[in-house]
Amino acid sequence: MTLENISANKSFGGWHKQYSHHSTTLNCDMRFAIYLPPQAAKGVKVPVLYWLSGLTCTDENFMQKAGAQRMAAELGIAIVAPDTSPRGEDVSDDPEGSYDFGLGAGFYINATQAPWNRHYRMYDYVVKELPELIENNFQVSQQRAISGHSMGGHGALMIALRNPERFTSVSAFSPITNPVNCPWGKKAFTGYLGNNQDDWKHYDSSELMKQASKHVPALVDQGSKDDFLTEQLKPEMLQAAAKHSSYPLELRMQEGYDHSYYFIASFIEEHLRFHARHFEA
Amino acid sequence: MTLENISANKSFGGWHKQYSHHSTTLNCDMRFAIYLPPQAAKGVKVPVLYWLSGLTCTDENFMQKAGAQRMAAELGIAIVAPDTSPRGEDVSDDPEGSYDFGLGAGFYINATQAPWNRHYRMYDYVVKELPELIENNFQVSQQRAISGHSMGGHGALMIALRNPERFTSVSAFSPITNPVNCPWGKKAFTGYLGNNQDDWKHYDSSELMKQASKHVPALVDQGSKDDFLTEQLKPEMLQAAAKHSSYPLELRMQEGYDHSYYFIASFIEEHLRFHARHFEA
Repeated sequence: MTLENISANKSFGGWHKQYSHHSTTLNCDMRFAIYLPPQAAKGVKVPVLYWLSGLTCTDENFMQKAGAQRMAAELGIAIVAPDTSPRGEDVSDDPEGSYDFGLGAGFYINATQAPWNRHYRMYDYVVKELPELIENNFQVSQQRAISGHSMGGHGALMIALRNPERFTSVSAFSPITNPVNCPWGKKAFTGYLGNNQDDWKHYDSSELMKQASKHVPALVDQGSKDDFLTEQLKPEMLQAAAKHSSYPLELRMQEGYDHSYYFIASFIEEHLRFHARHFEA
Repeated sequence: MTLENISANKSFGGWHKQYSHHSTTLNCDMRFAIYLPPQAAKGVKVPVLYWLSGLTCTDENFMQKAGAQRMAAELGIAIVAPDTSPRGEDVSDDPEGSYDFGLGAGFYINATQAPWNRHYRMYDYVVKELPELIENNFQVSQQRAISGHSMGGHGALMIALRNPERFTSVSAFSPITNPVNCPWGKKAFTGYLGNNQDDWKHYDSSELMKQASKHVPALVDQGSKDDFLTEQLKPEMLQAAAKHSSYPLELRMQEGYDHSYYFIASFIEEHLRFHARHFEA
């Protein structure tokens, strides 16, 4: 596995870097970004927070807009931001060119339907290939947390719920909590997974949380003025699932905030501190 | 003067908002962004930091990427970010389509040469029209500071040096300190001001600082790995000018940092604290 470094910016005493590599899981070249806090350069193996972005994003949005690096530097946490879908001329995109299916909209699942199953295997990429790559190539420990926004909030919760042994904590901003039950999720799951809704449930955080026996501590922030709240995000479904299985979920409705990165920036420090507490526990 | 609100995002308990208005100075419609800290909603008249962006930027870059709103909220400072040139179909652009002249490259000066003198009057816009608009329409005091990056660092220093009675402090990241003496500045000043170099000196921070008698406290940060350092930015010229007039300039070379917003984000808290100290003094 060869990593090609394509950018490097000093940031809060550490380094923001972008790399490209060939992904055997996704069958294409991929780019990711990593923030390495100053502690990593001093020989400390730092824990890693994986950040999954929302629809239309790349590895860049979170790194440029969330203001997370200040606190990551203070707490000694690396942050890894993958892209949101396979990429490249060879990768199928939605023929209708929509923003919520195809490129930039991988939904962190393994597609089973042609032509999507050739490249769209973001679940395996995020769960297996990417952490292996990171842990083999950077000054990091095997402690992992995961977080994300919107489609990426769905990805973070779903992946942590399915892999509780791999993550010490999970958080999300404005997650799609019940994709089997909202327009974005139904469209993506029908396209990538086909019409059998039993197959969809393995990727639905509310379904998974309802039945969870192993518990990864979870923090979710949701803005009360988010335009997607009622139709797409449905935090009440996740809350009900947590109640059903006595899951340690802290879900906070943040008055007046919307779906933007200004919301994420306002609370990212608290999320990083939450993950740091669980790394140390 | 009518302001049209075109976006609003809650951010760190305050509000990030964008407005458009017709500028009589620039003879076109303009957009600006303002961050109003939570204190403004509680009836406190807050001081204002004007932020001038660099080449190719709009009102959005700083607001999205600098991570400044956290500390502005804590310190109770409003931030106003104008665009970097006049805008609109009616406004002349560089026929060669370069990034460093015309749209996105107003250089914060008043053009004297046709066709630029019809709209390109960013000096008067930033010094007079914009503060008047802000002070008439928002919950702000008449305390002002000014800062900026690269072309905007030139703008901030030059405007503070020419208007010491209007600003309590000035700061800059990676400023073009001596535009009469670097390729970006020579190209812009020739185009906007003509060939008489005596006219250029009124917009050159190193020339102005050399002769300054009234002193606005100044903080400048410059990355040592900035690709534009030697050819375009020349901080040594500003340092020499400050020595000549015993100007209170703190110029810091920040080891390893480049020209990007990762550099700005890393030190913006110190700049905001610097301006806050002078507001309170």
